[in-house]
Amino acid sequence: GFLQLMQQLTVVGDVSREMFDAKMQQLEKLGDYHRIVVIEDVKSGRVVATGSIFIEHKFARSCGKVGHLEDVVVDERMRGCHLGQRVIEALTSFAKDAGCYKVILDCKPENAAFYEKCGYSKKEIQMAKYF
Amino acid sequence: GFLQLMQQLTVVGDVSREMFDAKMQQLEKLGDYHRIVVIEDVKSGRVVATGSIFIEHKFARSCGKVGHLEDVVVDERMRGCHLGQRVIEALTSFAKDAGCYKVILDCKPENAAFYEKCGYSKKEIQMAKYF
Repeated sequence: GFLQLMQQLTVVGDVSREMFDAKMQQLEKLGDYHRIVVIEDVKSGRVVATGSIFIEHKFARSCGKVGHLEDVVVDERMRGCHLGQRVIEALTSFAKDAGCYKVILDCKPENAAFYEKCGYSKKEIQMAKYF
Repeated sequence: GFLQLMQQLTVVGDVSREMFDAKMQQLEKLGDYHRIVVIEDVKSGRVVATGSIFIEHKFARSCGKVGHLEDVVVDERMRGCHLGQRVIEALTSFAKDAGCYKVILDCKPENAAFYEKCGYSKKEIQMAKYF
């Protein structure tokens, strides 16, 4: 159910079982650099919320670490139950425990209020180049 | 000269030779996930521009990859010589060759015009939480 949920966030495209497994292996090699959390509705067995974080190693800030929050999505049928907040809290704690001095993320302006409730503040602007 | 230059961008803090070497080893383990470029002024031996990129592996976009551009800085005595543009071009090409479907970065609003010249467009907003 993870990829079905991701489709509510972005274009997932074709991902075969083999591609999924290969990607999981790749991510497992990164070990403590990467973490995905999911919330499962145990009644239905559906994945209803997810988010991921990866840890960037910098030279700045005395060789500090930064957590990058990515791909946060809550099933549209389950919004308003604070599941998103639970995901953010879990990933933010993971980054803090890993020794990060900050966690950053990019979001649509209309989602800023949600992240402010989770203790985040507006910072810079995001630029992107697509190939 | 790399850390001296980084100080023009951010707080570097105390970084001993041992910390620098340990961080380099850590980054080398990441291999193709991480790349730092520097431009050196061969006359003075000074590092005059730098930037780094790391590759994030996603499930979205058919298990796609995203390049994250970080820590771009040009020596204040050398600005206006297109060194920043050269750094961005090199790192953007690296990401493209690595199979990324996009490259993203966060910057101050006053630097957006510079990145637009390099082919980037404004996208979302950045949120941050400091510990």
